[in-house]
Amino acid sequence: MAGVFITFEGIDGCGKSTQLRLLASELRVRGLDVLTTREPGGTTLGQKLRAALLDVQGQVDPLAELLVFAADRAQHVRTVLRPSLAENKIVMSDRYADATVAYQGSGRGFKPELISEIVQLATEGLTPDLTLLFNLSVADSTVRTRRRVAAKNTDRLDSENVEFHERVRQAYLEIAQTDPKRVQVIDARGSAQETHALVMDIVIPFLEERGLLGEERRARTRVPRT
Amino acid sequence: MAGVFITFEGIDGCGKSTQLRLLASELRVRGLDVLTTREPGGTTLGQKLRAALLDVQGQVDPLAELLVFAADRAQHVRTVLRPSLAENKIVMSDRYADATVAYQGSGRGFKPELISEIVQLATEGLTPDLTLLFNLSVADSTVRTRRRVAAKNTDRLDSENVEFHERVRQAYLEIAQTDPKRVQVIDARGSAQETHALVMDIVIPFLEERGLLGEERRARTRVPRT
Repeated sequence: MAGVFITFEGIDGCGKSTQLRLLASELRVRGLDVLTTREPGGTTLGQKLRAALLDVQGQVDPLAELLVFAADRAQHVRTVLRPSLAENKIVMSDRYADATVAYQGSGRGFKPELISEIVQLATEGLTPDLTLLFNLSVADSTVRTRRRVAAKNTDRLDSENVEFHERVRQAYLEIAQTDPKRVQVIDARGSAQETHALVMDIVIPFLEERGLLGEERRARTRVPRT
Repeated sequence: MAGVFITFEGIDGCGKSTQLRLLASELRVRGLDVLTTREPGGTTLGQKLRAALLDVQGQVDPLAELLVFAADRAQHVRTVLRPSLAENKIVMSDRYADATVAYQGSGRGFKPELISEIVQLATEGLTPDLTLLFNLSVADSTVRTRRRVAAKNTDRLDSENVEFHERVRQAYLEIAQTDPKRVQVIDARGSAQETHALVMDIVIPFLEERGLLGEERRARTRVPRT
């Protein structure tokens, strides 16, 4: 068996990063070997590339940006994701290929064929086993983002508008419709704990089905904790 | 008319950058509007991306590297090359797409189809009108590189070997065979001035044919200088 790859997707402020952390601790408590990572910026090269994009903000051509994200992803897939999956880890990534389809495809208006060509190039066909899509209206996610942004004393709502985020959100929902087996849509309107419960309802049966959690296994992994 | 795009190619130490400078001054003296640029690093984003690659040297996956170069090229094509050509400039680039075919295709061993797919993506079909390929043996170019490298107190011959550069050189020569109308091979064994004379023998008739230089035009452009 070669690990399990779970991705967390959704628009900014949907709560996916919080949910990733909560699920990771929960699974670690159950004795599972979990690696958490993210895109972009899940590798040292990725962090430098991200910094390069931010350094010249406003002057970056959208196609160049798309290719930088692809480079970030290729490095991530080949140096982090594949090796960790080969070590049978449960790999959880805060964003992955669906984000490119949603953000660059619908948000920035690139042709779907170009997007899938670049995604295919960078991932070399590595697809998540499970994707959790946190669905929240742009209005609700804006409230959360605003709270966070206020703390940083910047206003990113000036640079990217509500319409853009609504297009991204719809694109995510279309992905879920196209690939309903892999992509599970989660209502993210509740509190972090409420949403976490919804996540557990999906992930625990999913891991049990794969033989990674189960009555016998759970009993075994509980031993060190008693 | 939409400008002229000339690229300078060859292995490290072949003298192409010197030849680019010499030709640029010569053409400027004749009253032509010349823009000189380079890949990678011909844009601010490109310089930052190049720095990012150097920062994590030794840890960069070859596919990620290829995609970073593609991003650099997309930014260069869309923000420098196309706009300058649209302004009817003579645009001269120190390396362009052929370098990816030679270095990443043959040097690093990527499949030709993958390379041409990525080149096509990044250039969106922008092909040079003329490419000058400076042909020099790896041994001769190494002497020149060593001289330059000694000045910088580093030894890049440790990191990349003679065999790699020989593969790159052969790949360049194959490109010239495939596309003999566009790619002119220049014997780069002579002094800078000798090689410059060979360059002029190619470029002057090429520009005359395009109506950019000619008896009448040369007479006109000479006026302000008398």
